[in-house]
Amino acid sequence: MPYFDAASSVPLHPVARDALTAALDEGWADPARLHREGRRARMLLDAARETAADAVGCRPDELAFTPSGTAALHTGVAGALAGRRRAGRRLVVSAVEHSAVLHAAAAHESAGGTVREVPVDRTGRVAAADFAAALGDGDGDGEVEEGGDGGAALACLQSANHEVGTEQPVAEVAAVCADAGVPLLVDAAQSLAWGRPGEGWSLLAGSAHKWGGPPGVGLLAVRKGVRFAPVGPVDERESGRSAGFENIPAIVAAAASLRAVRAEADAAAARLRGLVDRVRVRVPELVPDVEVVGDPVRRLPNLVTFSCLYVDGEALLHALDRQGFSVSSGSSCTSSTLTPSHVLRAMGVLSEGNIRLSLPPWGATSADEDVERFLAVLPEAVREVRGQLDAPVGPSGAPAAPAKGDAEGETEAEAEADVTVDALGSLCPLPVIELAKVIGDVPVGGVVRVLADDEAARADIPAWCEMRGQEYLGADGTEFRVRRRN
Amino acid sequence: MPYFDAASSVPLHPVARDALTAALDEGWADPARLHREGRRARMLLDAARETAADAVGCRPDELAFTPSGTAALHTGVAGALAGRRRAGRRLVVSAVEHSAVLHAAAAHESAGGTVREVPVDRTGRVAAADFAAALGDGDGDGEVEEGGDGGAALACLQSANHEVGTEQPVAEVAAVCADAGVPLLVDAAQSLAWGRPGEGWSLLAGSAHKWGGPPGVGLLAVRKGVRFAPVGPVDERESGRSAGFENIPAIVAAAASLRAVRAEADAAAARLRGLVDRVRVRVPELVPDVEVVGDPVRRLPNLVTFSCLYVDGEALLHALDRQGFSVSSGSSCTSSTLTPSHVLRAMGVLSEGNIRLSLPPWGATSADEDVERFLAVLPEAVREVRGQLDAPVGPSGAPAAPAKGDAEGETEAEAEADVTVDALGSLCPLPVIELAKVIGDVPVGGVVRVLADDEAARADIPAWCEMRGQEYLGADGTEFRVRRRN
Repeated sequence: MPYFDAASSVPLHPVARDALTAALDEGWADPARLHREGRRARMLLDAARETAADAVGCRPDELAFTPSGTAALHTGVAGALAGRRRAGRRLVVSAVEHSAVLHAAAAHESAGGTVREVPVDRTGRVAAADFAAALGDGDGDGEVEEGGDGGAALACLQSANHEVGTEQPVAEVAAVCADAGVPLLVDAAQSLAWGRPGEGWSLLAGSAHKWGGPPGVGLLAVRKGVRFAPVGPVDERESGRSAGFENIPAIVAAAASLRAVRAEADAAAARLRGLVDRVRVRVPELVPDVEVVGDPVRRLPNLVTFSCLYVDGEALLHALDRQGFSVSSGSSCTSSTLTPSHVLRAMGVLSEGNIRLSLPPWGATSADEDVERFLAVLPEAVREVRGQLDAPVGPSGAPAAPAKGDAEGETEAEAEADVTVDALGSLCPLPVIELAKVIGDVPVGGVVRVLADDEAARADIPAWCEMRGQEYLGADGTEFRVRRRN
Repeated sequence: MPYFDAASSVPLHPVARDALTAALDEGWADPARLHREGRRARMLLDAARETAADAVGCRPDELAFTPSGTAALHTGVAGALAGRRRAGRRLVVSAVEHSAVLHAAAAHESAGGTVREVPVDRTGRVAAADFAAALGDGDGDGEVEEGGDGGAALACLQSANHEVGTEQPVAEVAAVCADAGVPLLVDAAQSLAWGRPGEGWSLLAGSAHKWGGPPGVGLLAVRKGVRFAPVGPVDERESGRSAGFENIPAIVAAAASLRAVRAEADAAAARLRGLVDRVRVRVPELVPDVEVVGDPVRRLPNLVTFSCLYVDGEALLHALDRQGFSVSSGSSCTSSTLTPSHVLRAMGVLSEGNIRLSLPPWGATSADEDVERFLAVLPEAVREVRGQLDAPVGPSGAPAAPAKGDAEGETEAEAEADVTVDALGSLCPLPVIELAKVIGDVPVGGVVRVLADDEAARADIPAWCEMRGQEYLGADGTEFRVRRRN
């Protein structure tokens, strides 16, 4: 049963399992105690810290273990902001950070700070120049604005995106941050299995269950010299950076498996990159109206994401699940448990019918045959889901309804023969389906107004226009306007 | 090798080990995902929640899993205070709470709130009436004081003390809190293995590695209807009360072992109570100048604590460790890793030479023979440690130096023939040893002044006076005054 959701969580690596089992016997005591069981636990903890620090590329005394990657990010963001309160109250983040960073940013805003989001291009990548602009005071005159936030205290950037796999220019952004004198926190959760992140970070966070370690272990590295003030209650554990009894068996397993995974990383990356390339090429050949998203080259080796027009992403996920494939989706079509992907929206790509495949770096479930079988199953699964929604897709992927008017020689007056579609109360992908059905009813130059209150429409209607070469005129509340261009 | 430090952490219960191993295979996926691995993880999480809620005595939807007992306490205190911000800014805690509660209280004070500590008696128990007074506005006139904190928002009380084993009157204090309309958070970390805590709590915290579950799991229960506002960044996990990827294998093991430990609790309690009673009676017979602390009856069944006059607690701990016994100490004589016990100080009992035995509820290390061997080894270990410090202990336990003056017929003038001992820079137990050496040099009614800057002296000089029937006159900075009474 192929599991293609490694970016969420992967099964325990065999090395992690062995280390965990052994450490349950040896590392259950309190490492703060002076008796032999406590000293043994302390030795295991110290050794795990050295191993993990080596993999991260920092000193052991710069590395704290936290209960999760989320905790590492929350603690890292809050501590770095508090440590630099005098420098300013501005947090700069990319628009495609993990929700844990965005939640920390929201908490910072609630507490009176400001947050600037750095946009990404259509592949999901930030530009170092945009970071530089966000770090500055905004108008370039070098002076603190009246009523402003005093300046940037911290910048956050992921090493690679968790939804589309695009690698970020960490070293370039780190250089820009260094120029501005602002520390950079790198969320390396998706990439630590593959190697050390780019140089120049000030803080770094990671999560063991993403690389085959057990759940319950995150990493927070803070470079010496970076101002850091823990927020909220602390204790004497983990240098005052993570309160509560250390989970030593899991920490030992996390460190051992990180080393093991790294030893296999290059071979695994080469193998998986080939499989992912195959998916990237074949899916648009096999399925009409698909957009493969994310950078085609500078990306995680094991992750590929595509969106299918006129498809309910969750329905497609369930259809694939019935065929034995476990994938994830950034769509938010029917379920309250799925929120629309802020990543896809920031990229300006389609969010409906979204499917992410992330292949585990080891084990039998990422085999060639599994990927082939997935490619064999996918077209029928998409057809089935589209059929349920009466989607306007012909065999060629063109809108099923042909254009009725002739664009030649139209006047402005004729072009005002507009059409309005009421999709209020309809969830994605229905508003886009309705739009596609009527676009041929207006002449070229004419405008279709779509009334839609589904949150996904805000991303998907512009994305559909981009894919179809139509002109997105903007939205006013729940009214979206599209001008026919072809 | 007998391990007598169960109150710090216990080895994994066999049931926990089996459950953990099985759940590593079944519960590694993200329970928020819709694919089969995610659904399976969700089912395991739901089942564990039902089991744990039954053991705690609450509804499953009232219970959140946290990364540790400390995290449960920090989150519970902060969330309950924030939820009742309008009711007031006062936090009421007993003086002998776990440091995690006191750290949360310190953070609350830093943020502008107020904290009132409820004192304990010499056994370490609070009185419900003292809680009632602390919940009121202080002067009993029922009006909010000017410049005051508006009133009590939350009260915290442990079910039983972690250092001396004394059980607290939870139900009585809960009734007092209910009368005042203030929620009560019960820290049940030390007692969940033995049974449900007393009725009437509003919030409850626990820690799995204290009952034989794995590290990495805490419990936070919040009764329906209790106002609770999470502080800091949250996500959609654990009802918004504990952010970050759930540690499902450990949660499954924690719940299974709690049920297993409870099934064995009555038999284990009866057996361990007998062993502890034996220690309580025999230690003062075997070792001179010992004070057994904590309530002799209303206490945890597996924990006994005593303090030895003129003993460096850490040195005694190491001497016992060399004999194969792992115990803990609330003393702070030589090591920077040991802080003086705020519990012993609040009780007004001796902190020097402090040893806590806490017997694991299962396994072979709490056997009759181990306790007998401990009792056989202890007297020589104490003698050895006292000998290193030239402690003034005779065979009878009386001060070695006989009184030089005759108390009969002394006048006030004669009594002013005072003695001053300079113990500045000396760590415990040296200031008390110096005091004991010279008390016989002053006549009855005379005063000894001890100059001491060791923090432990503040607890131990009054405690020595109490034990010896001498009169403690108080301290002025680093000068402690003691009047000879016998």
